[in-house]
Amino acid sequence: MADFRTDLAVEARELWAKSAAETDNLPGVEVQTRDFSGFEVTAVKITGEEGENALKKPRGEYVTLELDELIRREDDAFSRGASALAGELRSLLRLASADSVLVAGLGNEAVTPDSIGPRCTKYTMATRHLAQHVPEHFGTWRHVSVIETGVLGTTGLESAEIIRAICEKLRPDRVIAVDALCSASVSRVCRTVQLTDAGIVPGSGVGNSRAAINEGTVGVPVIAVGVPTVTDAATVAAELSELAGFSPPDEGKLRSVSDGMIVTPREIDVRAGDISKLIAYGINLALHDGLTVADIDMFVS
Amino acid sequence: MADFRTDLAVEARELWAKSAAETDNLPGVEVQTRDFSGFEVTAVKITGEEGENALKKPRGEYVTLELDELIRREDDAFSRGASALAGELRSLLRLASADSVLVAGLGNEAVTPDSIGPRCTKYTMATRHLAQHVPEHFGTWRHVSVIETGVLGTTGLESAEIIRAICEKLRPDRVIAVDALCSASVSRVCRTVQLTDAGIVPGSGVGNSRAAINEGTVGVPVIAVGVPTVTDAATVAAELSELAGFSPPDEGKLRSVSDGMIVTPREIDVRAGDISKLIAYGINLALHDGLTVADIDMFVS
Amino acid sequence: MADFRTDLAVEARELWAKSAAETDNLPGVEVQTRDFSGFEVTAVKITGEEGENALKKPRGEYVTLELDELIRREDDAFSRGASALAGELRSLLRLASADSVLVAGLGNEAVTPDSIGPRCTKYTMATRHLAQHVPEHFGTWRHVSVIETGVLGTTGLESAEIIRAICEKLRPDRVIAVDALCSASVSRVCRTVQLTDAGIVPGSGVGNSRAAINEGTVGVPVIAVGVPTVTDAATVAAELSELAGFSPPDEGKLRSVSDGMIVTPREIDVRAGDISKLIAYGINLALHDGLTVADIDMFVS
Amino acid sequence: MADFRTDLAVEARELWAKSAAETDNLPGVEVQTRDFSGFEVTAVKITGEEGENALKKPRGEYVTLELDELIRREDDAFSRGASALAGELRSLLRLASADSVLVAGLGNEAVTPDSIGPRCTKYTMATRHLAQHVPEHFGTWRHVSVIETGVLGTTGLESAEIIRAICEKLRPDRVIAVDALCSASVSRVCRTVQLTDAGIVPGSGVGNSRAAINEGTVGVPVIAVGVPTVTDAATVAAELSELAGFSPPDEGKLRSVSDGMIVTPREIDVRAGDISKLIAYGINLALHDGLTVADIDMFVS
Repeated sequence: MADFRTDLAVEARELWAKSAAETDNLPGVEVQTRDFSGFEVTAVKITGEEGENALKKPRGEYVTLELDELIRREDDAFSRGASALAGELRSLLRLASADSVLVAGLGNEAVTPDSIGPRCTKYTMATRHLAQHVPEHFGTWRHVSVIETGVLGTTGLESAEIIRAICEKLRPDRVIAVDALCSASVSRVCRTVQLTDAGIVPGSGVGNSRAAINEGTVGVPVIAVGVPTVTDAATVAAELSELAGFSPPDEGKLRSVSDGMIVTPREIDVRAGDISKLIAYGINLALHDGLTVADIDMFVS
Repeated sequence: MADFRTDLAVEARELWAKSAAETDNLPGVEVQTRDFSGFEVTAVKITGEEGENALKKPRGEYVTLELDELIRREDDAFSRGASALAGELRSLLRLASADSVLVAGLGNEAVTPDSIGPRCTKYTMATRHLAQHVPEHFGTWRHVSVIETGVLGTTGLESAEIIRAICEKLRPDRVIAVDALCSASVSRVCRTVQLTDAGIVPGSGVGNSRAAINEGTVGVPVIAVGVPTVTDAATVAAELSELAGFSPPDEGKLRSVSDGMIVTPREIDVRAGDISKLIAYGINLALHDGLTVADIDMFVS
Repeated sequence: MADFRTDLAVEARELWAKSAAETDNLPGVEVQTRDFSGFEVTAVKITGEEGENALKKPRGEYVTLELDELIRREDDAFSRGASALAGELRSLLRLASADSVLVAGLGNEAVTPDSIGPRCTKYTMATRHLAQHVPEHFGTWRHVSVIETGVLGTTGLESAEIIRAICEKLRPDRVIAVDALCSASVSRVCRTVQLTDAGIVPGSGVGNSRAAINEGTVGVPVIAVGVPTVTDAATVAAELSELAGFSPPDEGKLRSVSDGMIVTPREIDVRAGDISKLIAYGINLALHDGLTVADIDMFVS
Repeated sequence: MADFRTDLAVEARELWAKSAAETDNLPGVEVQTRDFSGFEVTAVKITGEEGENALKKPRGEYVTLELDELIRREDDAFSRGASALAGELRSLLRLASADSVLVAGLGNEAVTPDSIGPRCTKYTMATRHLAQHVPEHFGTWRHVSVIETGVLGTTGLESAEIIRAICEKLRPDRVIAVDALCSASVSRVCRTVQLTDAGIVPGSGVGNSRAAINEGTVGVPVIAVGVPTVTDAATVAAELSELAGFSPPDEGKLRSVSDGMIVTPREIDVRAGDISKLIAYGINLALHDGLTVADIDMFVS
């Protein structure tokens, strides 16, 4: 199998399994699947160096939720999806009750498949100023700040630099970084959310590698929330060829032809909007006990 | 070669040529290439039934401009491109000096690769009301009206129905219909404009076939202006596989995997904006003698 | 009292009452107030010529709903407001079960206070094509088509011309025309919806008078739905001066100073969005029996 | 004269002059008018405490450009306006050739009259990363970074906090802060740009006072660039009444009636776009020697 890029640990492990001649056991990687409120959850834990090298991802826990039901627009799918996301997120955040959080939306709002981060911030509740200025109503709320980092090309600044600068002044206890990802498989695009405590390299979803955002670079534990919105044309060609029973063509040739092209759902504008809102609601529910979807509706709209 | 869809006559002819075992001569089709202000122009004329069947396009002239220079953002590429477009458009329109024109933007503004038509109308100068209400300044201008037809899913109306209704009241001498197209080749996506006097089937660019818009259905000669903004994933897989030296996989299998996915440039938001503006300026220049790009800047911004 | 412009019949009557030296009785005008689901409703019926002249509005019924609760964002205010609107709208529409409807959004999406009509169409369910193409599911639904007419300056066409053209082809049984209005009082801006069977003169909300849209001009009974989003600066100056105990200054002088300026809520972008959605949901509920707000959420988002 | 709010020093001084019984001389304030490329420029210099108290503005130089010509859309008004702005800005910036600059867009993109800052950043050239990563082409360019600070209600963070955090990491030599302002006079709304080395209190343009941004609070000299986009309804009422020959009504009463309402041009969406672009181009020209408007067109679009 050619060495196609993916930001999803669950996919990286599948690709490894395919290429492995021997048995299905990879040292330094643990996989667990479970159900959360009807959503399929897969947790891939990379615990050692061998796992890091095989999956090309840093050590950490990578939790993936399948959103098929949401896509099918079942009746209460949105609120169940947001709750499931909140539950998994809470496990990774491990917050004490007074801990404060900085939510950072990464990516480019003007490029639809890269707009998950900025769109998500529109629905995320900033509460820090309320807790400070209206203590009689919000004094017990968790302090949450929300920023959009923009992209290097329009700011001149790495997202990691901006987050680190804010963290040094603000001293939040956790950072939640939201970004678009790249998948190696068409079938996961806009259908999966990955949560991880291993941080993130922003912009990889659309192909521009940049400085990593994790506890090492920003000084605060980082939980990354990502959604694959694209897969590149070369990857799709290989995947489809293989499914059709042919050996995949040479990767270099594929890339030279399809440079700059992405594969994305026809309805990406609508999908990116739906999923960004779902993530934001999940974050809000995870950060504030006792909050409901209806409360958030009143707050953010 | 598998039978992949394209809205471009120039591509359909290339695909035919590839599959043709014999000589490169297709009865009922004439091809001519020329240069217009440094832009490569290819004119495919379908003159008979044999050509219609082979290229799966109705009789008519299909003129294609390559916009490579524009993509490379050469200094005066925009105004030269708009002028070239205007020149070719004028040849197809064959307008008398007092003829009036209805410009119709087709497609869905909320779906980026389908937004060429609605975006284009923002830059197209409506002059009919000015000619009527401010005759001292605009009395000699051509009467131009501009509409967006929306899409069936949000209006309940076929674009053809709306245009026909307006034409019956307004009695314009020509309709110019602008829409996004679908290409069979990655290399033409967002790099080509096709002008044709054969009309258009709106929405084919993103895969929803609808009622044709041509002189037969709307009662007025229709010049269609289209830009390929996508190619579907199955087509790309086949194209890339072939380039890489493998037989393309079975089309049916490809389609079942890649259903609902499109291949589009990473920068489609920016590209769709640039090209829509170019087309609109080309239309404005074609419809009003003596107008300059600077005049249009003042008028539409 | 100076002769300031208002599109609201309820205001025109109040202004008349203020200026009337004698008793509070205006021949040819009937006024009734009632409560609908907790919303205050005022119905002004202009029945004769004397009323037309006094209120400067054509004969017809003008129903006004006060949306104060919605502004205060009470818990279920949105769905109660949409239901109240639907109830009053149904009374004016007087539809038979198989009657079809054309909903037309008037105004300019690019000018926030004039964007009520176009924004409303985004949330209005088009069903005509579904009833035709998917009869097994939608065969019994009312046929509803939805158009945006754009504005004269960018289309070259009066909204009335476009609606008339569509009506002649489509033969709907009713037209619902949605537009922004102008109020004479700051206190009603973005807080009131007026429904009327007397039609509408589009664009008057932002000061550009155009061709009327009513049964006489489009050939089909027209129910207009309007929201005041602005009041002009001169009107506000007069109103405020008067409230402060001074004679209002001369209208001509006021207008010369404040030309082109409007008074609007600081949060007009948010308000215009909220109210447009409310109106659309009210229309959807009025047109389709048994529909719920949750159904519409699934359909339009 | 009632004590109406203005962010413009030139207006504050006019209001003072009106109310001053005696001669037209205010200690601690110097005023100079000049012409720059055909644009009228007024420089108000507050040099002492008496001036600070009288004009309610901190010490510093306040330079105002009248943009009437731009409004009249004269032929080369845009490039002449951008050059004039650049010239005045350069005088206030006093940059050494290797000095770096952080440009901060303040305000709320979702509230049109408050969107000058964020819109301006879209056209401002970020060059820091280019100078670092592509030194062969951009090695001699000034390092410019560009951020949008968002607003307290959606971020939980004061703009001053964000700018200070970035400044402590990035150590720029100057900050340019762009924001919408509030004018006391209808005639200056969207027709004037104020440049000042005294910093800015963000959000005052739409009435929410927040933490000041100046050398004292962010640690770097701050040049503020502002455009009045609104004036409040109470101010307009007073101004118009006075012009009409009446004593202005009591301010408290006016405010209670017009709370939350603003006066703004009908075409504020278009105007805010035009002026934001002008400011950005002026900033770009001021920061990079030898740059032309055409260069910027290629860079930012």
